[in-house]
Amino acid sequence: MKFIIQRNRLIDSVQDVTKAVSSRTTIPILTGIKIIATEEGLTFTGSDSDISIESFIPKEENGDEIVEVQETGGIVLNAKFFSEIVRKLPMDTVEFEVSNHQQTLIRSGTAEFNLNGLDPDEYPYLPQIPEENVFSLSADLLKSLIRQTVFAVSASETRPILTGVNWIVEKNILTCTATDSHRLAMRTAPVEGAEENSFQAVIPGKSLVELSKILDGSNELVDIVITDNQVLFKFKNLLFFSRLLEGNYPDTSKLIPTDYKTQLVLPSKDFLHAIDRASLLTRGDRNNVVKLTTIEGNKIEISSTTPEVGTVVEQINTESIEGEELKISFSAKYMMDALKALEGTDTVISFTGAMRPFIMQSVHDDKILQLILPVRTF
Amino acid sequence: MKFIIQRNRLIDSVQDVTKAVSSRTTIPILTGIKIIATEEGLTFTGSDSDISIESFIPKEENGDEIVEVQETGGIVLNAKFFSEIVRKLPMDTVEFEVSNHQQTLIRSGTAEFNLNGLDPDEYPYLPQIPEENVFSLSADLLKSLIRQTVFAVSASETRPILTGVNWIVEKNILTCTATDSHRLAMRTAPVEGAEENSFQAVIPGKSLVELSKILDGSNELVDIVITDNQVLFKFKNLLFFSRLLEGNYPDTSKLIPTDYKTQLVLPSKDFLHAIDRASLLTRGDRNNVVKLTTIEGNKIEISSTTPEVGTVVEQINTESIEGEELKISFSAKYMMDALKALEGTDTVISFTGAMRPFIMQSVHDDKILQLILPVRTF
Repeated sequence: MKFIIQRNRLIDSVQDVTKAVSSRTTIPILTGIKIIATEEGLTFTGSDSDISIESFIPKEENGDEIVEVQETGGIVLNAKFFSEIVRKLPMDTVEFEVSNHQQTLIRSGTAEFNLNGLDPDEYPYLPQIPEENVFSLSADLLKSLIRQTVFAVSASETRPILTGVNWIVEKNILTCTATDSHRLAMRTAPVEGAEENSFQAVIPGKSLVELSKILDGSNELVDIVITDNQVLFKFKNLLFFSRLLEGNYPDTSKLIPTDYKTQLVLPSKDFLHAIDRASLLTRGDRNNVVKLTTIEGNKIEISSTTPEVGTVVEQINTESIEGEELKISFSAKYMMDALKALEGTDTVISFTGAMRPFIMQSVHDDKILQLILPVRTF
Repeated sequence: MKFIIQRNRLIDSVQDVTKAVSSRTTIPILTGIKIIATEEGLTFTGSDSDISIESFIPKEENGDEIVEVQETGGIVLNAKFFSEIVRKLPMDTVEFEVSNHQQTLIRSGTAEFNLNGLDPDEYPYLPQIPEENVFSLSADLLKSLIRQTVFAVSASETRPILTGVNWIVEKNILTCTATDSHRLAMRTAPVEGAEENSFQAVIPGKSLVELSKILDGSNELVDIVITDNQVLFKFKNLLFFSRLLEGNYPDTSKLIPTDYKTQLVLPSKDFLHAIDRASLLTRGDRNNVVKLTTIEGNKIEISSTTPEVGTVVEQINTESIEGEELKISFSAKYMMDALKALEGTDTVISFTGAMRPFIMQSVHDDKILQLILPVRTF
């Protein structure tokens, strides 16, 4: 294998595929990045066997030569060293040459690295995914979808299925749901190309977080293929594979109350800052509980008490309070997470009593729903 | 105690004095910040008993009222909670009121915090330092002095005296020396006001790092007072106290060679980047050793080998090579630290053989000297 490549393109591809590489793998070859040079260009692959990322650099792009492949072939190079080396090479072009016994020469200017590589034939194969039943949505929408739901997955492996986000596609509508059984985040969005098919998959939260880091905020389409045990995201010259979680995702539709006894409309930012302040004295405490009480004059009071430290209390003007008086306690962290996901200047919160889950939505957008279970404080 | 204060001034002072507060103190009251309100203004104090910082906010500045003291008095408030609270208060002014039993009300807009305070009389007294024998230098020069020497102090407590920087003032020249016995950094600078006095003190490296964080880059003068066991830095409305290290600092003057057998003049940046690249394969290794070899054509070769990973080699054009041929090995980390401290576009390195310490200086500035002990590699 022998090729010359533009350094900035090399950096981008190596950075992308390195996101899938774990230093704590039990399969030694997976600490490396696989590089394959063909007549068409270069393919880089990184994997921790849960997530695999493939980045392709074509020979030419818009008439510019990016890679000059002088000899096809392949090699696996240690991801940690390789990614540091490419970032620090002195010149704008880089030469690669693999000789016998996987000795790999990397030359840029007068700097020469000679790395011990591994045999690319020993690198595991990526899952083969038939490119049927593809649906699409834009990269920026996909990033929003992930951001607005993935924080609510369970951090505990007690019920592994809850560490993933449940994706359901039906009649060109994608519904993403995440819950850790104390709160729930749900977001719907239109997709393209799934008129006749429906899909369901539970995608690990960790995979979605990594995917989100690689996606840019453009409105270019991402193609998505869901199979029995894998999901593939195709974006520009990138392929992102993730295994799916096995098992049945709980039916969450029954959790969401459809009526309410008290409904508040609140300025989102003021409310978020007040919750943040009210939780200051309980930081570090797992149960950083704050109390919300409706008071006279369309106001609410946010308060919190930590006996050894002190108390905090603050009033906020609401846009409106409908229904019964209310006194309810909840996790400040869950509330702040939900408010940050909701977007929009005003938030509607619908309560069905101090002991029942309540739901939050943006005033002008019902595509996002956040649900929180209150905390008993007596 | 009762006062109203501008929030941004409160944030600055609390942030400054918090730098001295350690959460791991064995003296509970030192987890707090002491606030004293007098007719003249407010004084904030933080301390971990090694370092103490005092910040004064005057009643008025340039005709603007900053603090309105309605009732004098004092309180000690938990530094962690207090500094988070002041950063997140909603309005531009803040009211404080201490009632019986050190209950402290902090009000800003509709947000009210009620904190349990501690008795300010139980807070330890700061050292009393007579303001005689003061010398001065500008804040920006002091920051440079610290940055260019403090990295070379010892990280190990085996010889506690080496964890400090040795300051000697003689005939209005300050000399700062730090060494961990594998390398040495020395910097001299003119000071004002010490014509007739000479001083010597070993200041803990940790104290200098904290001081450097508080100093801005201005050319305003910092007044310095050295006593038997304390040093005081006075800057604007800040007092920064540090205890001194006890014991005799070793005589380092004999370590510095005065002649040389090989002398290189090198472009500093190219050399730094080459050392950085040569050390990439040894990262994580405590002894990240690189080799420097003089070669033909006024060039040097930088190289490094890590058997399991690979090799790296790079040539650099020097400005000049005088004297004997040389092959020498040294710590890449020490070399990069020294080069970053030196400043200037070109560096002179004077060697007296592969087994002897070598010194580095900037071509046009002999105020900074860096010394490194080579590593035996055979």
